[in-house]
Amino acid sequence: MERFEWYLPTRILFGRGQRQRVGEMTARYAKRALLLYGGGSLQRNGTYGMIAEALRAEEVTFAELGGVRPNPRLSLVREGIALCRREGIDFILAAGGGSVIDSAKAIAAGVPYEGDVWDFYEGRKTPKQALPVGVLLTIPAAGSESSDGTVLTNEEGMLKRSFCSEVCRPRFAILDPELCRTLPKEQIAAGGADILAHVMERYFSPTPGNTLSDRLCEAAMRTLIQELPRVLSDRDDMEAWEQIMWTGNVAHNGLLGKGNAEDWASHEIEHELSAAYDIAHGAGLAIIFPAWMKYTYREHPRKFVSFAAEVMGIDPGEEESMALAAIDRLEAFFREIGLATRLSEAGIGEERFAEMAQKACKGGTLGAFRTLSPIDVKNIFALAK
Amino acid sequence: MERFEWYLPTRILFGRGQRQRVGEMTARYAKRALLLYGGGSLQRNGTYGMIAEALRAEEVTFAELGGVRPNPRLSLVREGIALCRREGIDFILAAGGGSVIDSAKAIAAGVPYEGDVWDFYEGRKTPKQALPVGVLLTIPAAGSESSDGTVLTNEEGMLKRSFCSEVCRPRFAILDPELCRTLPKEQIAAGGADILAHVMERYFSPTPGNTLSDRLCEAAMRTLIQELPRVLSDRDDMEAWEQIMWTGNVAHNGLLGKGNAEDWASHEIEHELSAAYDIAHGAGLAIIFPAWMKYTYREHPRKFVSFAAEVMGIDPGEEESMALAAIDRLEAFFREIGLATRLSEAGIGEERFAEMAQKACKGGTLGAFRTLSPIDVKNIFALAK
Repeated sequence: MERFEWYLPTRILFGRGQRQRVGEMTARYAKRALLLYGGGSLQRNGTYGMIAEALRAEEVTFAELGGVRPNPRLSLVREGIALCRREGIDFILAAGGGSVIDSAKAIAAGVPYEGDVWDFYEGRKTPKQALPVGVLLTIPAAGSESSDGTVLTNEEGMLKRSFCSEVCRPRFAILDPELCRTLPKEQIAAGGADILAHVMERYFSPTPGNTLSDRLCEAAMRTLIQELPRVLSDRDDMEAWEQIMWTGNVAHNGLLGKGNAEDWASHEIEHELSAAYDIAHGAGLAIIFPAWMKYTYREHPRKFVSFAAEVMGIDPGEEESMALAAIDRLEAFFREIGLATRLSEAGIGEERFAEMAQKACKGGTLGAFRTLSPIDVKNIFALAK
Repeated sequence: MERFEWYLPTRILFGRGQRQRVGEMTARYAKRALLLYGGGSLQRNGTYGMIAEALRAEEVTFAELGGVRPNPRLSLVREGIALCRREGIDFILAAGGGSVIDSAKAIAAGVPYEGDVWDFYEGRKTPKQALPVGVLLTIPAAGSESSDGTVLTNEEGMLKRSFCSEVCRPRFAILDPELCRTLPKEQIAAGGADILAHVMERYFSPTPGNTLSDRLCEAAMRTLIQELPRVLSDRDDMEAWEQIMWTGNVAHNGLLGKGNAEDWASHEIEHELSAAYDIAHGAGLAIIFPAWMKYTYREHPRKFVSFAAEVMGIDPGEEESMALAAIDRLEAFFREIGLATRLSEAGIGEERFAEMAQKACKGGTLGAFRTLSPIDVKNIFALAK
């Protein structure tokens, strides 16, 4: 086991009806808030009106900024920083999924910083402080609601970069499964793949003997695989939504990989894919992860045997055949929930494989389960064709 | 699933060698600390010297109070409160297991309170503030290092009572498995039973459909049952100690029961047992929990089927026989690790069953999996004879 530090100060408010507490929670931190959100769905499904009313009831005034898009952009973050400074904002309420929350963290760290916020994403600077952020989660997927990370795309060069900092952890996150009811099926499926990937990045580790982490990860994966088809077949199934939303949070609150050297190669590879082709992160992961598995499973075959037996329900047998059967079954799961598992199905050819592989490795190597060079990453893209 | 709030702001520092950070972490909060500990083992195994040196290196001065005993007493807590006021203490460093940490929380809440600290345990008052507490954990068992609870015994009437409050959560907890090396085997076994019981109190819930919680609890129970015999047969097996120490923390950080109506009847019943007979809490749980199971399993037999199949490795079969086989196997596990599973083995007769049953129920009922009256509790004591 590796040494670690774990610090999770985000207050989680979970359950049906908890959205009603958004005013009271915001009022604990805010005099004047920025309400940050994405597209028009927030207005259409009534959540915007609910938030506005709740803030007014608590006498919290607010400015607002909509239009955060998937694979969120630096330009809108810069606009948000200027708005916050101009309006004397002291708190950011992110109402949405990972893109909105990641943008909120960027704005929060950017407001008190004299330089350009992109410095943090390029690793040139470390944020020392940030405005407090609160979250009303509408999409279970990214786990950003209680993580310390943020991912952003700089349109100049289409660079997708991330950074982690304790100052970014949201003060509170409201997880109300009733807000998931109106999500489109593509978004549900891609979100599910993202949740599963967050667990797999932690699970497929070269660290031996971390029994608790292995079993906890398997618990989360089994739950996701069991419950996701239920919400896809009935978006009003609140009991299943509760499981998906809670699993999405637990998958990325840091716990599941503690003591492991975590991998994260598939995430880095996918970031280049969605930077280049603007596909949904979860949809990209459903293509990349099985290809990564096919390329790396021989490195620590016992881990794949455990994955096969404990998560995928594969009968005991020869190591390699169990591993391959488990990867097959994962691909079948992704297809069952409506996701593509090949780049060609997403209309992506091999023209940019070499370029994306180079960018993913950022001049070095990727991963922990197996260390990957740009040539390895190109081979993984080829397996995903 | 039930609504919940989860807030876990204790910074966990985990791994071999992390004890060296006790000075640096204490210096973040303390000008003048109280070092609280139990018996002489801290001096004998060198931990006391290591702490003293680390505090001096950071220029943190400290007063000290030793002698905290298992089933910790109110009188020592009152002494600690007086000492802190007299010495101008602004931080408490608890070096020990659950008894030391629970006493530290009590002293911390008592110092700024004008009345008597026992008021909190009787539910007459709620603490509004407390001195900050830090923990150097030496016994994996109680999980108090990142919980918000504290249990104390008032020698007047031998009342064992508890309270929970966010102001009690330690600021940091250092979990260094190398400190476990010198623990006596009886303490290791009793600690293991306590850890397992913390999971079972959350797992045996009447709440349906909480798949993630079920699987996470099973993960923790499987790990404990697999790894505890390893440390008992070789106390230098650091890889196994890492698993036990981490499982002990995760078992009681609040996560595993989230969304469930939790039970806690066995804990309440055991508290009366250890108040009356001063036995170790974990040793008492190894006697009470199997008896509680035999009395209640018919209430939600499917939960016991899941426990049998996922945790105890019982082959599929008829519900009742699976449940009984799982309870048998749990008792066998407790015996294998050297714990008694009957009151008679601990020299406890039936003289006080009725009195303890009455006290456990505190004028009401106990539990959630099955609601228990004093008569039920007396029947459970009888099953544990």
